[in-house]
Amino acid sequence: MELEEFRTAGVAGVADLLTRGVRRALAERGYVSLTEFRLASGRRADVAAVNDAGEIVIVEVKSSVADFRADQKWPEYQAYCDTFFFAVGPDFPADLIPPECGLMVADGFGAVVLRDAPVTRLNAARRKAVVLRLALAASGRLHRLEDPMLDMAVGMAG
Amino acid sequence: MELEEFRTAGVAGVADLLTRGVRRALAERGYVSLTEFRLASGRRADVAAVNDAGEIVIVEVKSSVADFRADQKWPEYQAYCDTFFFAVGPDFPADLIPPECGLMVADGFGAVVLRDAPVTRLNAARRKAVVLRLALAASGRLHRLEDPMLDMAVGMAG
Repeated sequence: MELEEFRTAGVAGVADLLTRGVRRALAERGYVSLTEFRLASGRRADVAAVNDAGEIVIVEVKSSVADFRADQKWPEYQAYCDTFFFAVGPDFPADLIPPECGLMVADGFGAVVLRDAPVTRLNAARRKAVVLRLALAASGRLHRLEDPMLDMAVGMAG
Repeated sequence: MELEEFRTAGVAGVADLLTRGVRRALAERGYVSLTEFRLASGRRADVAAVNDAGEIVIVEVKSSVADFRADQKWPEYQAYCDTFFFAVGPDFPADLIPPECGLMVADGFGAVVLRDAPVTRLNAARRKAVVLRLALAASGRLHRLEDPMLDMAVGMAG
């Protein structure tokens, strides 16, 4: 049933389903997450998450081998998190994923950690900056949902 | 027209309108805000906001004199922010507001600062804790909106 859901979902749909599953798995582990999180470098992480100890996880979701091969920018993400994972679907050839990254296998309902990520702890200043950036991004998005006229009213930058 | 909107809004409606105006005014000043923000003490601030320097503002919204008189807990909020404001409607008697608090006058569309708040800078550890708490609260709420089945799926605490 889940695989069937995947086959009929299209590429963007598959990424959305995997992302939903990844976020649920992170929530189960005590992490709140945000999608499409823009780092200070300008690059956007598919999923960034933080727990109540301020520990940061970044997960890049790859819906296909082509999608994975098109993006070799993942080493840059490690500078903004304590642990970095790729998340792929059940039929993705796991041995393509570099051994120095964590690996999750996801579906639309959850995800399991196939391989833990090595921990490269952020320094205090970087952690502080990433957590602040998460607070700003999440609160800003929530405010726009709660007050749909906000941008028109105050001309906030995106 | 705005006053008319107030007269027909009821008590909860008035608070919501004032809150909307306050949040827009904060956004104009570079602060992203969150409503009903639970502090580490357990108390809930009506509006908490942070800017990209990590500076924290708390605003308590008072829809009426009775509402203001019923809550004399505001000194506790100052331990969690750099600046503390009350926000009231245009017909609220401003001289009731303690002089050691900032004062905004709001309507449903915005707010103006009638009196700036004295700045009592948070220490680094408290600031870090408040910003992390904002990130967790905002990301968690956003996730629940984006995945309405989340709580059922993972049994997250509210």
